[in-house]
Order: sequence, then C-alpha cells, then structure tokens
Amino acid sequence: MRVYLDNNATTKIDPLVRVKMQPFFEELYGNPNSLHQYGMEVRPHLNKAMGEMYDALNVPDKDDILITSCATESNNAVLKGVFFQHILKNPEKNHIVTSSVEHPAIIETLMFLSDYGVDVTYVDVDDNGGISAQAVKDAVTDKTILISMMWANNETGMIFPVEEVSAFAKEKGILFHTDAVQAIGKVHVDLTKVDVDYLTFSAHKFHGPKGVGGLYVKKGKTLPNLLHGGEQMGGKRAGTLNVAYIVGMGLAMRQAANHVEKMNTDVRRLRDKLEDALAKISDTIVVGPREKRTPNTLLISLRGIEGEAMLWDLNRAGIAASTGSACASESLHANPVMSAIGEDPELAHTAMRLSLSRFTTEEEIDYTIELFTKAAERLRSISSTYAYTNEAG
Amino acid sequence: MRVYLDNNATTKIDPLVRVKMQPFFEELYGNPNSLHQYGMEVRPHLNKAMGEMYDALNVPDKDDILITSCATESNNAVLKGVFFQHILKNPEKNHIVTSSVEHPAIIETLMFLSDYGVDVTYVDVDDNGGISAQAVKDAVTDKTILISMMWANNETGMIFPVEEVSAFAKEKGILFHTDAVQAIGKVHVDLTKVDVDYLTFSAHKFHGPKGVGGLYVKKGKTLPNLLHGGEQMGGKRAGTLNVAYIVGMGLAMRQAANHVEKMNTDVRRLRDKLEDALAKISDTIVVGPREKRTPNTLLISLRGIEGEAMLWDLNRAGIAASTGSACASESLHANPVMSAIGEDPELAHTAMRLSLSRFTTEEEIDYTIELFTKAAERLRSISSTYAYTNEAG
Repeated sequence: MRVYLDNNATTKIDPLVRVKMQPFFEELYGNPNSLHQYGMEVRPHLNKAMGEMYDALNVPDKDDILITSCATESNNAVLKGVFFQHILKNPEKNHIVTSSVEHPAIIETLMFLSDYGVDVTYVDVDDNGGISAQAVKDAVTDKTILISMMWANNETGMIFPVEEVSAFAKEKGILFHTDAVQAIGKVHVDLTKVDVDYLTFSAHKFHGPKGVGGLYVKKGKTLPNLLHGGEQMGGKRAGTLNVAYIVGMGLAMRQAANHVEKMNTDVRRLRDKLEDALAKISDTIVVGPREKRTPNTLLISLRGIEGEAMLWDLNRAGIAASTGSACASESLHANPVMSAIGEDPELAHTAMRLSLSRFTTEEEIDYTIELFTKAAERLRSISSTYAYTNEAG
Repeated sequence: MRVYLDNNATTKIDPLVRVKMQPFFEELYGNPNSLHQYGMEVRPHLNKAMGEMYDALNVPDKDDILITSCATESNNAVLKGVFFQHILKNPEKNHIVTSSVEHPAIIETLMFLSDYGVDVTYVDVDDNGGISAQAVKDAVTDKTILISMMWANNETGMIFPVEEVSAFAKEKGILFHTDAVQAIGKVHVDLTKVDVDYLTFSAHKFHGPKGVGGLYVKKGKTLPNLLHGGEQMGGKRAGTLNVAYIVGMGLAMRQAANHVEKMNTDVRRLRDKLEDALAKISDTIVVGPREKRTPNTLLISLRGIEGEAMLWDLNRAGIAASTGSACASESLHANPVMSAIGEDPELAHTAMRLSLSRFTTEEEIDYTIELFTKAAERLRSISSTYAYTNEAG
C-alpha cells in the first residue's frame, strides 16, 4: 500500500485538471498574444480560467490576479516590488514586519533585502505555533511600510490572525500581504471578508500543476514588475503565458473552493482520527490546538525518535510524510517551527508532519495508524536518547 | 488547410516530449526535494533532463544551468542580478551595453533600471538588421559592467556577432550575456566555441512546453537570485520544481540540438523557396541577407499593405504568421526592427514575419506561396497608399 501524507509539500493533480490541460499540449498550442486563429482560439479558455480564480477569491474585476510561476515568485514580487517602489525611493519607510515562521520565499528574500537597507522585524510564534495579532501590532513603527504574514502555516497548519492584522494595517495605512499558499482549499479565503492588498497562491498545493501560481493585487496597489518584458498580464507580469497550466490552475482553484466543506468535515475527521491515535503513543507532543489549524495538518513530535528515522521507517512501509518543509528538506535542519516555538533542539529534530488531502481515504489512515505506532515502538526500543531521557526522568 | 508559420512566437510541443511529460502529471507527482519515495522516484528523471541540457550547450558540470519559468525570467535575473550585485554596490560601474532590437524582456527591464541609476547604451542595427561587433566595442566605456546581446533576432532571424563580442568582453573584463532564445535548435550553440557568462533559453521556442526556460551561468559568475526562497537549484533559483516541464525541456533541447542539421538543410530549403517566391511580388523588401539569418525566418515588407490586413487575409486562409513579436502584438505598434532599421513608418507597418519549424511541410509552403501571392494582389488592388505611392513615384 502507498499512502501519500505530504500534501503540504505538494499534491497530486486532480484527474479532471489533467484532462482539462491535455488539449493545450496538443493542438491548442498558439501563443495567446498572437493575432491569428492559433492565438485567438486559446483566449476564451484563458479568460474562463481567470474568471474561476476571481470567483474563488471573491474579488472584483478591477483588481488584478497576476499569473506567476510559483508562490516563491509571487512572494518575491511583493517584497522586491515594495523595495523598488517605496524603500529605495524613500528610505524613511524601510521597515517590514513579518513572522518568524514564514516560508523561505519570504524569510530569504527579506534577509537578502536587509543587505540593501531594509529593516525587518520577525514576530515570534507562541507555544502553540500561533501568532498573536497584538504582537504584530506592537512590532509596527512609524517606518513600517509592509506587513507580510502567512494565512496558515505550512508546518503546523496553524491559522494566523489575517483578518485582525489586515484591518489594523489598513487603519494605519500600511500595506498588507499574505502568503495564502496553505490556506486555499483548506479554509475559506474570501477577500470580501479579509481586506488584503496582496495575496500569494500556488496551484500545486491544491491539486493543480507544479510551476504556476498567482498573486492577487488590489486595485491601486500595483508594484513594479518582478519580471519586466512583454505586455502579458496587462504589462504587469511579462513572459509567454503557460496556457495549459493557467487553465489547469483555474479549474483546480474552483475545485479547491468547492471542496472546503469536504476538507472541514471528511478530511478533518480523518486527520482527527489519526491525531487521536498517534497522541496515545507516550511522550508525544502535537503542536497547536486542532481547531486553530487547517483541517488536514498534524505536526507531532515523539521524544527520542529522530524525524529522519521515522520518515525512513514510514517510507519503507509506503507512507510519505515529512520532517519539515520540502523546500528545505534536502538539508537535515531542525524543524524551523519547532525551533521557533522554543522547543529544545532534541525535540525539534523529532518533528513529523502528516498532511492529508481530499483524496486521502479511511483505509490509508487506518494503515498509517498501525504502521506509525509500530515504527514508534521499534525506534524507541533502539533509541539511546529516549532510554537516557526515561532513566534521567 | 492550416499552416503554422509563427514558430518564432511559439512552437507546438514535439509529440515525443508530450509523451515524456505525461507520467509527471499522473503518478510521478512527488516533490523532488522530499526525502520519501514519491520524491526520490522523480529525481533520476530530473537528473537526466539536466544532463541533456548540459550536453546540448556543451558545458561542464561545474557551470550552472538554472531552470526558470521563461526566458523573460532568465533575462530579468541577469539584469537585476547585475544591478544588485554590482551597480547598487558600486555606482562607478553602472553602464550596460545592449542592442536596440533586444526582446522586451531586456529593453523594458533596462528602462526600469535606468530609473535607479543604470546607464544604458542601445547599439543600433544596420540597414540589414544586423549588429556590428565594432559598434558594440565602440559603445563600451570604463564604466561598462555588462554587455547583453541576443544571439539571433526574433523578428529578422539575423545572427549577431556573439563570438567576437563575447571574446572582446572577456578581454576587457566585462560580463557578457546573450539571449539565445531564437538560436537554440536553429544554429549550433556550443559554449566551448562562444565564451559567454550568461545565456538565456526557453523551451517553447524549440518544441517544448510554454512556462519553462533556463539560464546558463558560468562558474564564478553567480548573481543574486531573482527568486529567493528554498534550496532548489543549489539555492540559486527557488521555487518547487516543475518536474514535468523540466523533463520535457531536457528532451526538447536534445531534439533541438539533434535537428540543427535538418534546420540548415530541409527547413532552410523551404524557407528559401518561400522567400524566392514572395520576393517576386513587386515592391517587396526582405530584411537581411539570408545566409546571415536563422534558417527558418523571413521578414518581408510589401509596400502599401498593412501587416494586419495581410495577417487577416492569411488567417482566413488558415495560415498563421505575425507582424512582429507576439510579446507585444496585442498592440498594433510599428514593427520595432523595421523602425530600428530606419525604414519609413509606412513600411514599418507593412512587415510580415514568417517562421518555419522542422514540422513545416513542402505542401504547406506551396499553399502559403499561392495564398500569400493572391492576398497581396487583392490587398494592393484596394490599397489607397499603394496606389498613391505608385502615382507619386
């Protein structure tokens, strides 16, 4: 049996999306900017896909949704756009507030920009892996130009207070960006209810293809392009349009929005079943109250068991999970969220993330419970640190 | 009959490439950075594809090929990378030399950067649409940090003197970048023979998918990322890897390299046949000597016939051509190369580009000759400017 529980890293393509993309790899290959039939015949498909994205976010036509190549590009576009548009021109407003547990596309970009005069405050998470809106407010100064805070965390699934922080930002005249990569398809992302200036999303996190994402930009908040060039996307993001993937992302986003309820019932139930069973293993810590997390995510630490060892045991049993963000998982760092929470380094090395999707079945969860429990017993029995901890305790 | 003669805008996907990509839309959906089986099983395919690209360019492993989302991204990465790495830190070296007929991804990026202290010299083309190496050398000053010159022009197919200019740049200690989007698959692009620091390419110009490209970076010439984030591409270009398209681009690039000879024999013969036939129409101008052009491209002006009118007549007959770069063709500008050559505005509006591929057939060319000639007669018979010109002449 193979069980894929690494859906926060990437997801499989919805078969409907795959079928929808197929003609654009075959006869519908025209460049949509061309004036001839080959170009014109693909445009209605693009327009429909764009409409599906506007509908999914519930935003008006006057706002922009720019198609990018990934969430990383969208995040870079916002931060570097703010740098060029505001900070480089007016160094008096050079302060950006973010959280200490953002995706590397935020953290690394800000670290880069801090070499060029950008001042960054990283707001820490609390013991649950959550962010307090008050802590964000307290971090703001007269020099703050932007707050960038993710909608939901990739490691823990913890949902951050975007509604309160975005309202505060608006009141203060500060730009607000949210990386909503882990929120789309898992919680309602309705921009009539949360007032953001910029929002990042990525198709491959909601059963679309890898290599396409989006950036929502509120009317009047246009930033300089990250990619200058041709007149695609109203001149705001150049590059020949990846027609197949845009069409795929449109349908995937519609499907994601349509399945939020399923995520909050069926998938949540399976996640909770998995969580309840694994939490019975002694000396485990589950990060964050489940009602404050996206319904598909579980981050659990088992004292005395290296995350990589557990990953390997699960992998041999056909179960795919993660010790942390796949964006950094080639290097065996301590899990960054566990570190941020302030757990001791040993525990930070024992984190396992299990993330479900709407395609996860009950059978798969039952199998995982069985195999995970066995693996924990086996690894504990050979763990020198766990034996030591128990003796010392 | 449908005839696609707009291959400099985009190409259809080679059926072999399409088949090769298919499994990565289905069962092989893992994130290659993941440590489990789903991630590990895709890595050999990625490695093979990267090897195909290194082979196609004939470059050693110590150099980098970074996968990007398109040529526009690659070009932006070079220019903005040089800006951050060199110009922003040392404004004494703020000068960039380029040609006046580069792709908008170069021209627009440089126009943007010139607001931030970058000084740009645009070297003009000669009457044939060519660039003189001497003119580029003459444009260089003590402040020049970079020369960026395309390998072959998208509009005319004219091949630029990359070998001589790159050797000169190396001698002077100036960085050299070439946008080789229109060269790959049409002429030999062998980097043991032409010594470049940076080279841009794009899959959809050589029968790969739209939405993936590459940037070659010589060892020791690394620039700051355009996309900061995760550790993909050795930390030099972040973003979850678009596995399907990378695998597709690898095969497409191998196929392109393997078909350069076919381009230079079969496709060149068809292009020349088309050119000879159309040049027989009175009052036509073909830009550039054919032996100095890529073998698939023909830019022709017919006095008195608006390019858009001809495009429309051809389109009704099922023939796809272009009046200029598809990157800008939604707006009916004068053809920028024709303007750069210094033709009068009327002639600049009469340019038609016909670009073949290795999939173009003799039957298609015969049909195009017949229909194009008919369209020229029809449009001339109703052209007020042509009648006027003839009377005035």
